[in-house]
Amino acid sequence: MWKTPVLIVNFKLYASGVGESALKLARILDKIHQEREISVVVAVNPLDAYRIKKEVSIPVILQHADAVDFGAHTGRINVDLAKEYNLDGLLINHSERTLKIEDIDFLIQKSKELDLISVVCANNFRVAGALAFLEPNFIAMEPPELIGGDISVSTARPEAIVETIEAVKSVRSIPVLVGAGIKNGEDVKKAIELGAEGVLVASGVVKAKDPERVVNDLVDGMM
Amino acid sequence: MWKTPVLIVNFKLYASGVGESALKLARILDKIHQEREISVVVAVNPLDAYRIKKEVSIPVILQHADAVDFGAHTGRINVDLAKEYNLDGLLINHSERTLKIEDIDFLIQKSKELDLISVVCANNFRVAGALAFLEPNFIAMEPPELIGGDISVSTARPEAIVETIEAVKSVRSIPVLVGAGIKNGEDVKKAIELGAEGVLVASGVVKAKDPERVVNDLVDGMM
Amino acid sequence: MWKTPVLIVNFKLYASGVGESALKLARILDKIHQEREISVVVAVNPLDAYRIKKEVSIPVILQHADAVDFGAHTGRINVDLAKEYNLDGLLINHSERTLKIEDIDFLIQKSKELDLISVVCANNFRVAGALAFLEPNFIAMEPPELIGGDISVSTARPEAIVETIEAVKSVRSIPVLVGAGIKNGEDVKKAIELGAEGVLVASGVVKAKDPERVVNDLVDGMM
Amino acid sequence: MWKTPVLIVNFKLYASGVGESALKLARILDKIHQEREISVVVAVNPLDAYRIKKEVSIPVILQHADAVDFGAHTGRINVDLAKEYNLDGLLINHSERTLKIEDIDFLIQKSKELDLISVVCANNFRVAGALAFLEPNFIAMEPPELIGGDISVSTARPEAIVETIEAVKSVRSIPVLVGAGIKNGEDVKKAIELGAEGVLVASGVVKAKDPERVVNDLVDGMM
Repeated sequence: MWKTPVLIVNFKLYASGVGESALKLARILDKIHQEREISVVVAVNPLDAYRIKKEVSIPVILQHADAVDFGAHTGRINVDLAKEYNLDGLLINHSERTLKIEDIDFLIQKSKELDLISVVCANNFRVAGALAFLEPNFIAMEPPELIGGDISVSTARPEAIVETIEAVKSVRSIPVLVGAGIKNGEDVKKAIELGAEGVLVASGVVKAKDPERVVNDLVDGMM
Repeated sequence: MWKTPVLIVNFKLYASGVGESALKLARILDKIHQEREISVVVAVNPLDAYRIKKEVSIPVILQHADAVDFGAHTGRINVDLAKEYNLDGLLINHSERTLKIEDIDFLIQKSKELDLISVVCANNFRVAGALAFLEPNFIAMEPPELIGGDISVSTARPEAIVETIEAVKSVRSIPVLVGAGIKNGEDVKKAIELGAEGVLVASGVVKAKDPERVVNDLVDGMM
Repeated sequence: MWKTPVLIVNFKLYASGVGESALKLARILDKIHQEREISVVVAVNPLDAYRIKKEVSIPVILQHADAVDFGAHTGRINVDLAKEYNLDGLLINHSERTLKIEDIDFLIQKSKELDLISVVCANNFRVAGALAFLEPNFIAMEPPELIGGDISVSTARPEAIVETIEAVKSVRSIPVLVGAGIKNGEDVKKAIELGAEGVLVASGVVKAKDPERVVNDLVDGMM
Repeated sequence: MWKTPVLIVNFKLYASGVGESALKLARILDKIHQEREISVVVAVNPLDAYRIKKEVSIPVILQHADAVDFGAHTGRINVDLAKEYNLDGLLINHSERTLKIEDIDFLIQKSKELDLISVVCANNFRVAGALAFLEPNFIAMEPPELIGGDISVSTARPEAIVETIEAVKSVRSIPVLVGAGIKNGEDVKKAIELGAEGVLVASGVVKAKDPERVVNDLVDGMM
């Protein structure tokens, strides 16, 4: 398990989050991790995963895997293959790649078996509480209407953070991350004060002109 | 809420479960309900729902609804429309029509708002426990490998019934139904002895040569 | 086959296009059909189909059907059931209910077999030309960006109408309908002048304060 | 464009088609290509693509890509990224990863733009003819019921090969590949005699004890 608080950077399929740019960004994040002794995790594209994993010491996770075992599944990626490539875990059910409940269950159980870290996303406190029963390693709550926007969940919906943590803790003791619109250290600080044990960020870092500066600011909020 | 134990007959899209045959079968089930004073519910095709609802006194529910409000959604059916037609509830997440967790959440909340009964299906005890947090009216657990088969869940997987009830009750006090392969009163009796508050049947009744006899036998197991 | 030009009104899942409102609107359209001797077709919700079909003489089609035969398909509607209820056809692949190519193929072939009219939607001239090879009864082209908007395809993209008709006719001689943003007789007239053999409308009629007036205006453009 | 006849080996998600095994198999195929001067193409998992592309001279294609541009698409892979990694093309609409017609259109157009080779799969001659209108580089027809089986399409359904080629050629002059159950040179030879310009194989090679021997036999049938 990763030391909390944790900062997960989701590279998505941004032009600045794939290929050479992804590798460069991962190296910057690795450097910040080493300088500041904070948990930083990158969620990368499968085409980039092998390269990035070889070059950095921070955890590298997939943004998605399909709920299948090895077999005749053309065009699918599974948890076993993530393991074979020594990756560290996966995002499950991100709002841009939502899943059936039975597939979420499959992916969490499979991750446990193979000792990968599962970070399951929820769109609200009810879904977060339900998913807690499946015992992922982390639950990340992101209000869909704030994702990719300019106002952070910490500012716009602090009560959503609190009720999500309460819902999750009423079921299982699982660390809760929050995301959506988080762009600076102040947003992070508020989230952590409200009980979050980390944040999930994407555009704020991946599309930034100076990602190193932005991440250092986010890390300020974690300390 | 329906009086328990409850017998839900899912008409699926069997040739003998739609059109004139559906109406005839619904009438038989209505008669048995009246004769034997037991809760019987029919889950019907949307094309049949209006007709059947007008002709029977037992609850009529949809086999599925989409997680949308009224609007520009060509080819979708929503909970509001089920309400408008005075239907009684809906099956959600049947193994032949599985859903994303966020859509299951939407459908349960919407059903509550409109005072419709929600029966949410789960493929195992973990998913059942998770879904309990969303507070549907009923949770129906069916091991997928037994659905449509000749061996009932009561015989083949009694422990699955017990662990599902435990999982659900550890989260919320919600009645658990079970299904898959249930064909006679003995199967029903065992399920109820194990703690189930009803059963979900389909082919055993809908494809039976003499459905009235089969249902009366199932009802024997409920008493 | 329907006499061309044809006016198809897609009721979608608008609050004003379901339940009692749907029935009322279908009756208005039926009356206009009789008064003005023009082909008018309604694409309705499955929950409304039985009622509406009994009350009107104009063709009643489904907005969608699933690519399955009768069987264990909980929550699905198929072409066979549409036939059993004496419905006249179906919309296939509407932009709000897009389908896999193999399912479109299935639905068109099944419709032919059962003598139902298939109206297949395409988002551009290439897709329209491809679908022509599957020999539906009608192809309806709607540029997705104009659907539900205020500018009609006739005004905004007349060249899209022309190239769609050319693409379709280069493959098979199938009548082409157009839709998206069509709100008045002038829009219809232009579409027909460009070679369309009918129009597909929705919000312009279904959400109109006075649908009768709007439809009469649309019909003016067809004459 | 690849010289025909072409042999495409789809590694699927077989345990023997990913990771180290995938790399080893790709090297064997590369060697055979060089020894026998025949077009051999490998369709690999995205996690393997970067490594394999660096190690072999034969074309490396993806088994699937999503119909999106760069952007906020967590867990998706697009054609642009395949290009960035210098991959050679992609399988589209494989029977284990079927797609909406509008997404097939998007992927073919995008592949053309970026100068990648598109190999589009069809389940029958009608769908093949329809897809020809979208002008992919290759159309691969595989009867779904024969995929992964022991009887080849050449033996079981020779007429399906002929009618597919006729359907495609009636629309556009696009080379047709066939697949499903192809396991030896005799199967390949028959397919080519019937007019196919190559074959798509998977389990026959990827799950073989001695893939080199099997592929050499397949290549015998191509000469």
